[in-house]
Amino acid sequence: MTTLTNTFSFEILHQSKKSAARVGKITTPHGSFLTPAFVGVGTNGALKSLGHDEAMESGLDLMFANTYHLMVQPGEDTIEKMGGIHRFSGRSRPIITDSGGFQVFSLAYGSVAQELKSQGTKKHANSVLKINEDGVTFRSYRDGKTILLTPETSIGAQKKIGADIMISFDELPPYHIAEKALKSSFERTHRWEKRSLEYHKNNPTNQALYSVVHGGIIPELRKKSCSILSQMDFDGHAVGGSLGKNRDEMVEMLQYTLPCLPKEKPVHLLGIADLPSLYSSIPLGIDSFDSSYPTKAARHGTLLTDNGTLRIVSGAYKEDARPIEEGCLCRACRTTSRSFLHHLFKANELLGLSLASSHNLHYMVRFMERVRQKILLDEM
Amino acid sequence: MTTLTNTFSFEILHQSKKSAARVGKITTPHGSFLTPAFVGVGTNGALKSLGHDEAMESGLDLMFANTYHLMVQPGEDTIEKMGGIHRFSGRSRPIITDSGGFQVFSLAYGSVAQELKSQGTKKHANSVLKINEDGVTFRSYRDGKTILLTPETSIGAQKKIGADIMISFDELPPYHIAEKALKSSFERTHRWEKRSLEYHKNNPTNQALYSVVHGGIIPELRKKSCSILSQMDFDGHAVGGSLGKNRDEMVEMLQYTLPCLPKEKPVHLLGIADLPSLYSSIPLGIDSFDSSYPTKAARHGTLLTDNGTLRIVSGAYKEDARPIEEGCLCRACRTTSRSFLHHLFKANELLGLSLASSHNLHYMVRFMERVRQKILLDEM
Repeated sequence: MTTLTNTFSFEILHQSKKSAARVGKITTPHGSFLTPAFVGVGTNGALKSLGHDEAMESGLDLMFANTYHLMVQPGEDTIEKMGGIHRFSGRSRPIITDSGGFQVFSLAYGSVAQELKSQGTKKHANSVLKINEDGVTFRSYRDGKTILLTPETSIGAQKKIGADIMISFDELPPYHIAEKALKSSFERTHRWEKRSLEYHKNNPTNQALYSVVHGGIIPELRKKSCSILSQMDFDGHAVGGSLGKNRDEMVEMLQYTLPCLPKEKPVHLLGIADLPSLYSSIPLGIDSFDSSYPTKAARHGTLLTDNGTLRIVSGAYKEDARPIEEGCLCRACRTTSRSFLHHLFKANELLGLSLASSHNLHYMVRFMERVRQKILLDEM
Repeated sequence: MTTLTNTFSFEILHQSKKSAARVGKITTPHGSFLTPAFVGVGTNGALKSLGHDEAMESGLDLMFANTYHLMVQPGEDTIEKMGGIHRFSGRSRPIITDSGGFQVFSLAYGSVAQELKSQGTKKHANSVLKINEDGVTFRSYRDGKTILLTPETSIGAQKKIGADIMISFDELPPYHIAEKALKSSFERTHRWEKRSLEYHKNNPTNQALYSVVHGGIIPELRKKSCSILSQMDFDGHAVGGSLGKNRDEMVEMLQYTLPCLPKEKPVHLLGIADLPSLYSSIPLGIDSFDSSYPTKAARHGTLLTDNGTLRIVSGAYKEDARPIEEGCLCRACRTTSRSFLHHLFKANELLGLSLASSHNLHYMVRFMERVRQKILLDEM
């Protein structure tokens, strides 16, 4: 086995005296960043209506891209030929990719993932052809081509894509699943994660690999998952699988899960970053969060502020000359008013989507800066 | 009559020895700029997917906004309350508005203007209720409200909007019109323009007012129009009305029209700025051109280069690592490749529209820079 030239590292800069929250520093081949961090979602390698130059300037340290989407368009081989996702997309700061499994399985179980919804659920239906020990065979929503996703092909694709952090291939069981089926899925997902890690170690790159902690909302299974995965040489752990049917269930699950994970490894929470969830889970020790919510909400005219969300299409803002939020330095707040933004949404102008996205992303980045400050002061 | 505090001026910096082309300088309350100039179209006060900060940085000196659209949304009163179109939209450089007549009449005659097409033609049909000596009554496509557009209400609205340059209210006759009807429209349009100017002079602002030269493709009528309008105190003249059924007819019309206009006033060509038309009409003495073509083409993936247009969705660019055009300093060319742009269009990512628009607008600005250089060197 070749020596792995892994430049990934995680350092805890401060452990809060008030909770399990910590301020950390993650180092990757594309630079270092502080945690807890918000991770913007750029499914196809782009933050919808926002350029990478603007997002990087705003301080978005880490971006999430979806392997499933990138495999289907433009294909991992094209990205590799173009020099990897950073050079291809023009984003020079860290990027994380998922395994593709989440999207494939959410299709299989009929509960289509948030990010897929926007593309129309109908055409995705029944795209999964076969699931067995090897992996999952599905039909591309784009051209009908058959794609086999296994731990090896997923990690292989993620290596070609070339993100700084990869996620191992797992099976996503639905929330409503018989206990026997859950246990069987649980066993298989850990075999798949082991195969993911082995493939990664045998084909070394300077990328990091996170595991995905499973077990649904069954404390014993979550603990067992932590125990299995902690013994393997992952660079970090992501909390995935079924996170419960509401925020309370999720927080309860995180409460018994996180203490079972090694303190010295970074922990990512998959797909959740609404503000109440951040407030609840940062004190439990989560280090990074990805969510398409801030940019998706922006495109629907919902803007984040310290005084709650602001529905910009409301008539209340028709002649409001103030920026979205006083003191915000995003492009929207620097260059325009609530009144003009209201007009852009009313007139269906594309510029409105860009400006609103710029604000919400900037808000999340600034929110995490303040969170880190609170942790450093032991106030959180 | 109050003294008009008109800060508008036009200075010819160089008259080409090779043609009637000239390099000029137009000064407005929002700064000076050089001509011949390309005028980007921001119908609703926004360049679709492009921010004003970026457009101004690119060197877009003048933007065209449509009074008809702004009256309907957000309404001229709102824009006035918000401090005028510059403060409202965040564009601090010069802006020109049309009279609203073009859009209203193009609806009446069933040949919907280019810019309206994108909003769906059906809902606009039969929106014109009445045309008489006073003006035109039409139904708002937005809320069904009845709007009366006359020379006085059009200039009144344009004053509230507050662009640097306004255009007088005229009647747009269709291309296929009986000679008698054309002459009757011709007489009325000049009475309307006179009323526009009188209303402007009686309600002075530091805005400029351009006339619209009419007469279709009948040389005598065009000459007569120039003669009538030249005797009035307009700040500049726009060539409008029916411009012929193809480029050859338009160029022929411009050849006998332009010599009849005073050399010391700037001349604008309404709604035309494709490259062949620019090459044909700049040597005839046109000083500015507005067109939504470059940004609209961009949104459809057609990119302008010195080697012709480039259809970015073509498979030829799937793995092309070059920028759209070597040496171009637009945001797209500085931050991304043909390959990534191809991917963004294939994946229906909004960012593709912004980047493509950025390129085409930048291309037009740069094209006009080179045109001015050629005129200064007497090469055009």
